[in-house]
Amino acid sequence: MFMRALIIALALGASPVLADEGMWTFDNFPADALKQASGVEITPAWLDHVRLASVRLANCTAVFVSPDGLMLTNHHCVESCLGELSTKDESLMERGFIAGSPGAERRCATQLADVLVSMENVTVAVTKASAGLSEQAANDVRKKTLTALEQACEQVSAHAHTGKLTCQAVTLYEGGQYYLYKYKRYDDVRLVFTPETDIAAFGGDPDNFQFPRWSLDIAVLRAYERGKPAKVADYLKINFAGPQAGELVFVSGHPGSTSRLETLAQLEFDRDLLLPTTLLRTSELRGGYIQFSRGNQADMQLVEAPLNNLENGIKVRRKLLDALHDDAMMARKKAEEATLRSLAKPDGADPWREIESAANRERAIYLPYSFAENAAGFNTILFRYARLLLRGAEERAKPNTERLREFTDTNLPRIEQQLYARLPVYGEVETLTLSFSLQRMREWLGPDYPLVRRLLARESPEALATRVVAETKLYDADVRKQLWEGGKSAVNASRDPMLELARLVDGDARTVRMRLENEVEAPITAASARIAAARFKAFGTRVYPDATFTLRLNYGTVAGWVDNGAAIPPFTYLDRAFERATGASPFKIPDSWMKVKGQLDMRTPFCISTSNDIVGGNSGSPLIDVHGNVVGLMFDGNIESIAGSYWFDAAKNRAIAVHPAIIREALDKVYGAKALLAELGAS
Amino acid sequence: MFMRALIIALALGASPVLADEGMWTFDNFPADALKQASGVEITPAWLDHVRLASVRLANCTAVFVSPDGLMLTNHHCVESCLGELSTKDESLMERGFIAGSPGAERRCATQLADVLVSMENVTVAVTKASAGLSEQAANDVRKKTLTALEQACEQVSAHAHTGKLTCQAVTLYEGGQYYLYKYKRYDDVRLVFTPETDIAAFGGDPDNFQFPRWSLDIAVLRAYERGKPAKVADYLKINFAGPQAGELVFVSGHPGSTSRLETLAQLEFDRDLLLPTTLLRTSELRGGYIQFSRGNQADMQLVEAPLNNLENGIKVRRKLLDALHDDAMMARKKAEEATLRSLAKPDGADPWREIESAANRERAIYLPYSFAENAAGFNTILFRYARLLLRGAEERAKPNTERLREFTDTNLPRIEQQLYARLPVYGEVETLTLSFSLQRMREWLGPDYPLVRRLLARESPEALATRVVAETKLYDADVRKQLWEGGKSAVNASRDPMLELARLVDGDARTVRMRLENEVEAPITAASARIAAARFKAFGTRVYPDATFTLRLNYGTVAGWVDNGAAIPPFTYLDRAFERATGASPFKIPDSWMKVKGQLDMRTPFCISTSNDIVGGNSGSPLIDVHGNVVGLMFDGNIESIAGSYWFDAAKNRAIAVHPAIIREALDKVYGAKALLAELGAS
Repeated sequence: MFMRALIIALALGASPVLADEGMWTFDNFPADALKQASGVEITPAWLDHVRLASVRLANCTAVFVSPDGLMLTNHHCVESCLGELSTKDESLMERGFIAGSPGAERRCATQLADVLVSMENVTVAVTKASAGLSEQAANDVRKKTLTALEQACEQVSAHAHTGKLTCQAVTLYEGGQYYLYKYKRYDDVRLVFTPETDIAAFGGDPDNFQFPRWSLDIAVLRAYERGKPAKVADYLKINFAGPQAGELVFVSGHPGSTSRLETLAQLEFDRDLLLPTTLLRTSELRGGYIQFSRGNQADMQLVEAPLNNLENGIKVRRKLLDALHDDAMMARKKAEEATLRSLAKPDGADPWREIESAANRERAIYLPYSFAENAAGFNTILFRYARLLLRGAEERAKPNTERLREFTDTNLPRIEQQLYARLPVYGEVETLTLSFSLQRMREWLGPDYPLVRRLLARESPEALATRVVAETKLYDADVRKQLWEGGKSAVNASRDPMLELARLVDGDARTVRMRLENEVEAPITAASARIAAARFKAFGTRVYPDATFTLRLNYGTVAGWVDNGAAIPPFTYLDRAFERATGASPFKIPDSWMKVKGQLDMRTPFCISTSNDIVGGNSGSPLIDVHGNVVGLMFDGNIESIAGSYWFDAAKNRAIAVHPAIIREALDKVYGAKALLAELGAS
Repeated sequence: MFMRALIIALALGASPVLADEGMWTFDNFPADALKQASGVEITPAWLDHVRLASVRLANCTAVFVSPDGLMLTNHHCVESCLGELSTKDESLMERGFIAGSPGAERRCATQLADVLVSMENVTVAVTKASAGLSEQAANDVRKKTLTALEQACEQVSAHAHTGKLTCQAVTLYEGGQYYLYKYKRYDDVRLVFTPETDIAAFGGDPDNFQFPRWSLDIAVLRAYERGKPAKVADYLKINFAGPQAGELVFVSGHPGSTSRLETLAQLEFDRDLLLPTTLLRTSELRGGYIQFSRGNQADMQLVEAPLNNLENGIKVRRKLLDALHDDAMMARKKAEEATLRSLAKPDGADPWREIESAANRERAIYLPYSFAENAAGFNTILFRYARLLLRGAEERAKPNTERLREFTDTNLPRIEQQLYARLPVYGEVETLTLSFSLQRMREWLGPDYPLVRRLLARESPEALATRVVAETKLYDADVRKQLWEGGKSAVNASRDPMLELARLVDGDARTVRMRLENEVEAPITAASARIAAARFKAFGTRVYPDATFTLRLNYGTVAGWVDNGAAIPPFTYLDRAFERATGASPFKIPDSWMKVKGQLDMRTPFCISTSNDIVGGNSGSPLIDVHGNVVGLMFDGNIESIAGSYWFDAAKNRAIAVHPAIIREALDKVYGAKALLAELGAS
């Protein structure tokens, strides 16, 4: 299972195209090159249709598959929704969910579905506004300009025939280009179907990022508008026969983040600091979760979703670290930089060296930034609520363009959705995560670090965590709503202990954030833009930007690969899943399947390997044939694909999809979901 | 708190001497150079006296401080003994221990005390035996020769006036030299005094490897012979006034392991594989321990000692990793190799390149080796018992020189001591550690790896761990003794589930061990010996070998250092400990101290910083003045000292000792240990 944005991407423009490589924006898809290579013509109409059927979820991708707003995505993309809809007594993770009727479809409180309606290039406006300024001033003005552009876009759209759009500024090629992406947003998304986790994540963490594979990692959602299923003109039909080996296939989706065009100095920062420290913190928390859940089904359910998520992140980061320890690839990276430098001869000071200096400054402030501003020292959703309330009150009192970017008008509806959602929050789990994170903050910043001393001079991490989690009222969505709507005076008057904690931290957090923005982000942005310009000069537009969790299209073929001399075929089949089953999670096949085992066609294709270039965020993306039909549902990559964050290895990097045949087999024979099958056009 | 051997040292010979740097063997101490630099003459008699007063514990160093076998060492060196002597109802970690009378001194079941009586250079015999053979054959013959030499030495000593000695082969300069070290062994070691952990480890993990510091990390033991306190001719007196700033001081002790002379390829192996994987496993287990102990005093006590040990290891490895990410130091390392290569021109193929090839082979087998042979997949003392019994039965049936080296006659008494010791073993903790380690083995080797599949095809890691821990009888020292003494037939007949588990693993484990020995160890040993020869040729004998947990002496001065422009003075005082106390562990000052706070001299010196070059294993080493008196007790280094595994930074690397004045103040006013003080010559 892939994950969402792991690393802040700093796309710098791109090298010339390699086969199957490339996360292309829809307005720069290399249709000509593809036609030359394959004879297949991808038309503008095909591109528009696929784009408008593609959906961005809060953390993943989905695809419209019926005119009534039905969407296909991954089970692991709705795990948090399943957690929200579960209780201590009933786990939707464990038993799955089928809405017997439209009225039984259940809302995912913090989910949303965005459809990319149009893209506007605003590069000229942005670069003009910051021209001639110092790096820091330019960085400030750039942000204000982006906010102003978003605001104007949303105001215009509110009165246009499109209906109100959500407008988000997108930085491509790290300041080589700026765009406004305009989305139609559905904020009422409901759960229609998921299988049990035991089959959705069959193989669990051990099989994660492995192929051959047998995971029915699917979920069905539906977009609603004004309380009714949304009517959508653009949706894709499913071809349940699936693709052939060697067939040309496409993936449309939202790759979250890559760092392929970061400089060597930035990758070394990841290798030396970001990845190791994050891995240590998350591995420790993993141990805490596992022990918390030990031998107790009820406790296990409380941490199942966050633990899955954490384990996925650990696996990804382990392999990212392995990739960065590949000295040969790092040497190649260095050589590429030298080539680009000599080809493009950027003016003035060497931008690669400027980024190196900035990355060295970042090393010095990374830990305080991470603990205080990134709240790695305060790991609980209750603290995130508190900070949103505290900062939201302060920031909303300012003009839109003067605010921290996450509090601009464009972003407020999403914040309110999160604050108002009635999620189950379990005190014992929040105490666990908060106390682990406070402990590590004390260790890594040191007991005499001023912030640490202020918080922990008289209380142990455990005691502080226990107290504030026990006494806060921020569990209650009504309390949060009151505080949010009450603004500055309500928040200032509150003595809620979690708000008090957020208040105690906020000065330090804002200070270190400002240092990071001024001393690291500003010079890196300036230098990166110059590198992007150099790259455009050298390679023209046959380059693609790093992933930014915005819509991309790529092409590849249905193909396995060769591993240590052994050919891995591109399809798996149902029979082998039963052979691998042990009866215990994560290798347990659910009872619902065991009961009908005799009726199942054991030669049903299960999963597919393809050479498409995708990463986390592409989870739930449709695999599409040349006719624009869905022939698979992406949910993962092989272990070699993780290095795709840094570079694409065409020989080994493979994407993994659920085959549509197993979806039909399961919906039909295991789950008896006749109405759903009919809506999917399967009968 | 330092720790014992983290990494298998491969000492390659050494660079020319730097100030304060060097872990000198007693027969190669640079007395002339020291005299030239300081005017102080260190005589052979001084060296003999200090050596015979120095004691090697199972995992640390100690020093004789009375003619009746009294030894001073660190509290953290006796933690496992405190665990062994504690019960669920009474924790010696928590409340400390004072033997009111000699009869009340309590035996530490797995502790021992070795005194280095003499050292014999056997290089010629060893190199002759393996001359002209292939790398693999030479590796085998070398081991057999060392075993034969140990055996002959022990047989001779049994009939000599010295009494029976324990003879251990020591590889110095990675095959540049081989020695027989001959020890007088005390296997009856008893606990006399420890303070409470709250003051012994004041500051806990957050303050660990920090200075300024306030930890009374001391313990008093006594060696016994034939049931009576041992009479020792060589012991050191304590000078309770302590040293002056700038004073010349010595440390005699057993540094565990350094890698200063490993090649770049070996350090890269540590950086890329050994350290990150170990850190991830131990961080996860740390989270498990913390969660296990949460909010429950009784459970906390069960894991306190292993958790402290684990956290210390994590801190050490984190900083080792940071050190190896220092690209400038790695570049210097590379340059040094180039210099040595050009200076010494070793014959034949380039030994650095041969080591690089071997290290690359090691990368491929490291994980299976680590999980199967190193038992990282079977983390419980019960499995270690099972393997000792299983392999012990097989190996003892062979002639001494044909056995795995850890089962030679020299090593059997130590194995028997461990097997027969009646330690408390807590099933819930063993289930925790075993199940964590099985899970990680399944993840990292993959569910389809043959060994994993054999063990876990029908059982989850949790279920397997729970079952074998619940059903094994190896908790019982009598059962273990019976099986050990019963030999092969008894072991073969046993169906104990932990023995069955060890049996299931043993084939794979031995196979991967043999691969490691043949494909990695043999060529590295051969190449390293050639590098050592090259180094001797270039630098003569003014070099010191890497640490090997054998006795060394070094000199330095009482000195702080400059940190970010601020001078850190070399002494701390009692008053500041009270100022830093929070009332909660690890910043809690025990009640015993709070009660007498008014009587304490707040200006009593507490800890000392010196420039001596020490590492883990030196814990408990005496700090010695030129007169041979003890003026401090080493227990830690500053954070910069951790990089000392790879290189010595004279400007920043500092050792930390407990000041003798605080020892007297505590024994006198807090613990009222008058008899002990008298024996220490304090009154």
